[in-house]
Amino acid sequence: MTFTLSPTKAVQAIKPSYIREILAATHQAGMISLAGGLPNESAFPMEIIEQSMQEIKSDRTIFQYGSTQGYPPLLNYVREQYVVREQDDAMIGTGSQQCLDLIARGFIAPGDHIVMEAPSYLGALQIFELAQANIHSIGENESLTGPDLTQLENTFKQNDVKFFYAVPDFHNPTGICWSLEVRKAVASLCKQYEVFFIEDVPYRDLRFKNEPIAPVSDFYENCFVLRSFSKIATPGLRLGSVIGNKTLINTLVKIKQTSDLHSSIPMQALLLKLLTHENFPKHIENIKQKYQTHHDAMLNAINEHLSEYAEAKSVDGGMFLWVALKHVKAADVETVARTLLKANVAVVPSNVFYPSDFALEDQQVGFRLNFTHASVEKIEQAIGIIKVELAKLAA
Amino acid sequence: MTFTLSPTKAVQAIKPSYIREILAATHQAGMISLAGGLPNESAFPMEIIEQSMQEIKSDRTIFQYGSTQGYPPLLNYVREQYVVREQDDAMIGTGSQQCLDLIARGFIAPGDHIVMEAPSYLGALQIFELAQANIHSIGENESLTGPDLTQLENTFKQNDVKFFYAVPDFHNPTGICWSLEVRKAVASLCKQYEVFFIEDVPYRDLRFKNEPIAPVSDFYENCFVLRSFSKIATPGLRLGSVIGNKTLINTLVKIKQTSDLHSSIPMQALLLKLLTHENFPKHIENIKQKYQTHHDAMLNAINEHLSEYAEAKSVDGGMFLWVALKHVKAADVETVARTLLKANVAVVPSNVFYPSDFALEDQQVGFRLNFTHASVEKIEQAIGIIKVELAKLAA
Repeated sequence: MTFTLSPTKAVQAIKPSYIREILAATHQAGMISLAGGLPNESAFPMEIIEQSMQEIKSDRTIFQYGSTQGYPPLLNYVREQYVVREQDDAMIGTGSQQCLDLIARGFIAPGDHIVMEAPSYLGALQIFELAQANIHSIGENESLTGPDLTQLENTFKQNDVKFFYAVPDFHNPTGICWSLEVRKAVASLCKQYEVFFIEDVPYRDLRFKNEPIAPVSDFYENCFVLRSFSKIATPGLRLGSVIGNKTLINTLVKIKQTSDLHSSIPMQALLLKLLTHENFPKHIENIKQKYQTHHDAMLNAINEHLSEYAEAKSVDGGMFLWVALKHVKAADVETVARTLLKANVAVVPSNVFYPSDFALEDQQVGFRLNFTHASVEKIEQAIGIIKVELAKLAA
Repeated sequence: MTFTLSPTKAVQAIKPSYIREILAATHQAGMISLAGGLPNESAFPMEIIEQSMQEIKSDRTIFQYGSTQGYPPLLNYVREQYVVREQDDAMIGTGSQQCLDLIARGFIAPGDHIVMEAPSYLGALQIFELAQANIHSIGENESLTGPDLTQLENTFKQNDVKFFYAVPDFHNPTGICWSLEVRKAVASLCKQYEVFFIEDVPYRDLRFKNEPIAPVSDFYENCFVLRSFSKIATPGLRLGSVIGNKTLINTLVKIKQTSDLHSSIPMQALLLKLLTHENFPKHIENIKQKYQTHHDAMLNAINEHLSEYAEAKSVDGGMFLWVALKHVKAADVETVARTLLKANVAVVPSNVFYPSDFALEDQQVGFRLNFTHASVEKIEQAIGIIKVELAKLAA
């Protein structure tokens, strides 16, 4: 006879998420998915991968247990590329997702105050909810160049905030890129109120328009910087990195040792081969060019077909367009997404990007559309279907 | 100016471990390490690995994001091989270490009562300490065929115990294999007191003597079974599995999604190729034979050279011999290990395998010696060095 084993309170709080339903549905025949944050498989650097797999396959040492902090040659590469302050160090994790989870496990006690943007990356939201953090959400400023600084300062003033987590480059889900002024102002506020900044930059290298803007961590030292290799190399490897003060990185290494000993060593060796391959810069150029083409096609189709019902702004990089819906209420956006799903188009409705207690009337209402994964043809087809469905709903 | 970020109380409780110092020292030139639980690289199935890497290297799909529960073909293989009850399912994790950590995160609240063997696997001990569990330790019975059942029943009686975690096959660190009677009795006690059993079987397939004994989970349904592929395939892949009731596996999948999305897909595809390769059974036979040779050589050397100071019992499989020291006190065993380390032999002293509050006078005093990693020649050399050092200490 089986008996019940109850999950802890923190785990019970993880809601059954509609995004899981959507992502499960994306595998159905005929479905066009603009839902996931997936890079385009046809743009994977297969030639470089095959050559690199060939080069590592006989190296016995990478199949043995390895170092928790990371495969030393990869770790050194990451240090050389990204560690700018002497007091900082790096760690490799199973995706930047794991790096953020380890930060939460290491430093967030139940009830600790955390600030996030709203809407915000769902994976981060889940990590902070699992850590039972007290989550404060900051909306965007009116010019859409970053978070509302007045609201941010008030939140810092009124609470003993431990972390501000943000995605300044091509924000997920809105695609917004923070201006230089906003970055400096956020650094200055974090300094003033002694708030630790977590800068998540998975899309930073996917800029296809205009010049890069210095990261917030250039102006402020109390930072963790999270990098993903999923977007520039491939996601299946599951590798990311975190950079921060040495003492804090040591704490993360201790927890990582307890949680999985280390991440796959052959995958770390493969990643290093990719990153240092002479054709890798060309690969990055290729995907940026491809993604710009997709972006332009999607934006044109939205402007042409959806202008009556929705609005989207051009982005300078990343993977997402945010489609604001004109006549839909926050309470109904999930239903609209379900309707589209029945018509074989998967999109992510805005409500899932907000914490569960975030007031409906303050939510931006819309969809997040991924433009990197589906082909241009499918993207155009999907926008056509969305038009038909939105027209039916408006009728 | 940097400011301090304090780790949570649970993380602060992770002690700086002497075993980390030892493992770091094992890379020094001239060091013979009998410390880590490392398989022998020279016995890695490189031919099968190379062939399999060749076969997967052009498969674009495995480099995309994948399923949290596991790469479906590997998951199906694991289900077919190991899932015996209809209500059960499996999940793939980044090592069985991650699977156990997810169980702790999913189901153990601070203060929950957990029972372990003493001495016990250090990695599990760290997980339960990080989960802030209330850890009860059960010693071995006098015939060394498993835990002391009277002590176990008393602990079950006196506390609302949630989990009993154990390594019944070739226990780490003692090498003991539970008898069939003990297994049935443990199943029956767990049933009677409604205690969930976590059966960790990383060494089960490494039996080189006598017949396999049915696992505890054959006699009891409220179990998680943890399997490692590090010992039979290779550790660098970092893959393990957990089997348990479907509802509970679903909970683990939810937490895993938050903690790292999924484990490396190319590594899961590679593992499946290895496990299903026609020469894999031959590889398993090879390593078992090799490890028996190592085991016999180490045991003979101990009997020949150390009988004045120590005693070790033959084991039927696994990776470790437990060397009980005759004239050393529990308080001194770490110092003895440090002395050996200076003489270029790394061993793990008994004290690290006990929870921090376990009474010294109740600890078995000795070393855990790994016989799989070093060559027979090095093993014999190491035992010679240990003899010299123990003789000096006894003088």
